[in-house]
Amino acid sequence: MRKTATAPTATMPSSGAAERVGSSAVRDLLHLTQRPEVISLAGGLPSPDGFPVEAIREATDAVLASGSRDALQYSTTEGHPGLRAWVADRCPAPTDPDQVLVTHGSQQALDLLVRATVAPGATIALADPGYVGALQVFRLAGADLAGIPADGDGLQVDVLAQRLAGGLRPALVYVVAEFDNPSGVTLATERRTELAHLADRYGFLIVDDDPYGALRWSGPHRPALSTLSDRVVTLGTTSKILAPGLRVGWVVAPAPLAARLVVLKQATDLHTSSLNQAVVTAVLTRPGFLEPHLTGLRERYRTQSEALQAALADRLAGRIALHAPEGGMFLWGRLTDGTDTAVLLARALEAGMAFVPGNAFSVQDPHRSGLRLSFATEGPAALVEAVDRLAIALGT
Amino acid sequence: MRKTATAPTATMPSSGAAERVGSSAVRDLLHLTQRPEVISLAGGLPSPDGFPVEAIREATDAVLASGSRDALQYSTTEGHPGLRAWVADRCPAPTDPDQVLVTHGSQQALDLLVRATVAPGATIALADPGYVGALQVFRLAGADLAGIPADGDGLQVDVLAQRLAGGLRPALVYVVAEFDNPSGVTLATERRTELAHLADRYGFLIVDDDPYGALRWSGPHRPALSTLSDRVVTLGTTSKILAPGLRVGWVVAPAPLAARLVVLKQATDLHTSSLNQAVVTAVLTRPGFLEPHLTGLRERYRTQSEALQAALADRLAGRIALHAPEGGMFLWGRLTDGTDTAVLLARALEAGMAFVPGNAFSVQDPHRSGLRLSFATEGPAALVEAVDRLAIALGT
Repeated sequence: MRKTATAPTATMPSSGAAERVGSSAVRDLLHLTQRPEVISLAGGLPSPDGFPVEAIREATDAVLASGSRDALQYSTTEGHPGLRAWVADRCPAPTDPDQVLVTHGSQQALDLLVRATVAPGATIALADPGYVGALQVFRLAGADLAGIPADGDGLQVDVLAQRLAGGLRPALVYVVAEFDNPSGVTLATERRTELAHLADRYGFLIVDDDPYGALRWSGPHRPALSTLSDRVVTLGTTSKILAPGLRVGWVVAPAPLAARLVVLKQATDLHTSSLNQAVVTAVLTRPGFLEPHLTGLRERYRTQSEALQAALADRLAGRIALHAPEGGMFLWGRLTDGTDTAVLLARALEAGMAFVPGNAFSVQDPHRSGLRLSFATEGPAALVEAVDRLAIALGT
Repeated sequence: MRKTATAPTATMPSSGAAERVGSSAVRDLLHLTQRPEVISLAGGLPSPDGFPVEAIREATDAVLASGSRDALQYSTTEGHPGLRAWVADRCPAPTDPDQVLVTHGSQQALDLLVRATVAPGATIALADPGYVGALQVFRLAGADLAGIPADGDGLQVDVLAQRLAGGLRPALVYVVAEFDNPSGVTLATERRTELAHLADRYGFLIVDDDPYGALRWSGPHRPALSTLSDRVVTLGTTSKILAPGLRVGWVVAPAPLAARLVVLKQATDLHTSSLNQAVVTAVLTRPGFLEPHLTGLRERYRTQSEALQAALADRLAGRIALHAPEGGMFLWGRLTDGTDTAVLLARALEAGMAFVPGNAFSVQDPHRSGLRLSFATEGPAALVEAVDRLAIALGT
């Protein structure tokens, strides 16, 4: 009975799942770094100035004024037919809309994929440092993680090949081939080819998490992994090209796997918001909208990226090693004097700026002197000011 | 390599999870029953005429015109503070907003709860027949299911007590206390008290799935389970009071469990759509809106329920046993001559109507002569016509 002397002494049932995950250091940090006086380069928040607010508002009005109430009703688990067709059309490899499942952001796509393919104790290989949200999903699944070192050309596929030759048998190899989170680097073409070859040889699935692919402003086009092997699952999202608050993403998978993902999605949350799918479809397919919009985003992020790099070169010359990104939202740095960035963060917050220390992205390597700087959220002036404050925290 | 003679012979990795779930018979049926000539009483679709389209459109316009772009940005995993406060305020037991997690529909709330509390092989007890969506989540988790018989007063808690005395040790006992899906019945007050007592004694959690509670048009108010024990988790949703296409639900849990659910939600999909949460909060808290709206929905569903029952009494007198629901969306029937409703469904579709056969809701009992009729989607005239067609299928 409620609040009586006979209140329960038994503990709550637990599967142990939440305890496996822990919380996200990045998201916990977001709570700490949202003081208005702090310029935060910590979060992976797209620039709100890049949100197509009017296009979203007009699309919502049109969808709700259409007379059809389908956008407010339950809908099919697979997703909006128009959105599935749009995604399939843009895939670089021939893709049937039946291979596309619409999800509540691409984070959900990854969770569903791992639930479908990774039994507890199975192995997942990924670059070390790795995306925090992926690490959470993998730990939730009880997977063994094999961190593979990365450099300016991305995941060191030769090291993966050695590990495979030595007996490593991953169910999945997870990559962010275009503008990795956190490292910002792009996977080199020859590494893509070799990774596809290894997938076919060893029978693992490649998960190509691709939230940033449309945000390339320099460098050559590389072949998508899905054009190099049939054993590739690609994750996509509107979060970085429209707005994350809509929570509309997708997974493109070989047809039999896509069918299994639909079954899991149905059990998990029935379907993604019908309204948001209808609105997103209307915005993405609006004549003349998307390409100029993407051009504007690329220009915005290029400008911001260059401002951040120039300020770092100016204020921290010789103290930080960087790889210039060809697109995306993130710049990864390594402090050459071995400064522990987890310790530095406290001083940086005092100085009025924030970043994410490298250890948040640790698979096995602690990345003690690494840090992730996002150039997506703030404009050039604030980025320069943030670097000034970082320099103060570093005592330069 | 893609589509070559060396194409992979290895199979895709599988966790076996999708295979445990199977697909939902109800949702598969929805595909078959959507021919325009079929009057479907099969789906659990709220009446689209009850969707507050204009209120949703005005709220969306206001949110997007506000100048703040927070509704399009990433947001906290826990959910919109205004919505969490609104939910906590309406809870019948004293509730802190920190106990509320906003989810992508209450289906996701159930999935998260089960992931947090049910290890593979643990037991979940529930009424037999049971809600299909819950059965999918429970099977996905690899739980052992203990079906407890139910009657016109809901779950037979005395039978559960006997099973507990005999050694049954469920992690969860799942109930839909108000207007059960599929049975339509309400859990009697004395059974609630006894169930709460058993939870405290044996240490299980009660999951009170409450999508329909606001839709009561007759019968006395019963005490919510959350007022009777601290070991209760309540699931709620806007799907039946606003519109399901928004996918905004919630879970209210004891604080330590709520914190674990937040960790899992973060790994699963980061957070529920910021835009939909802002819109829902604006609609729910709009002065003078909600109570008249709910009154209208109750009147609509009462009228439709009575039309369905009157038609069944008129056309199938003596052939079908029913319990008149006090609210909600569903009427459960049992054909007294033992007709197999899975066989009957094919004839009913030929005659131009659809229902869900009892076996779709089977935990252990096959419910071969049971059927679920939804009175939510169609108006009175179509409901009467559907019963005429059902009578033709039955050869009366």
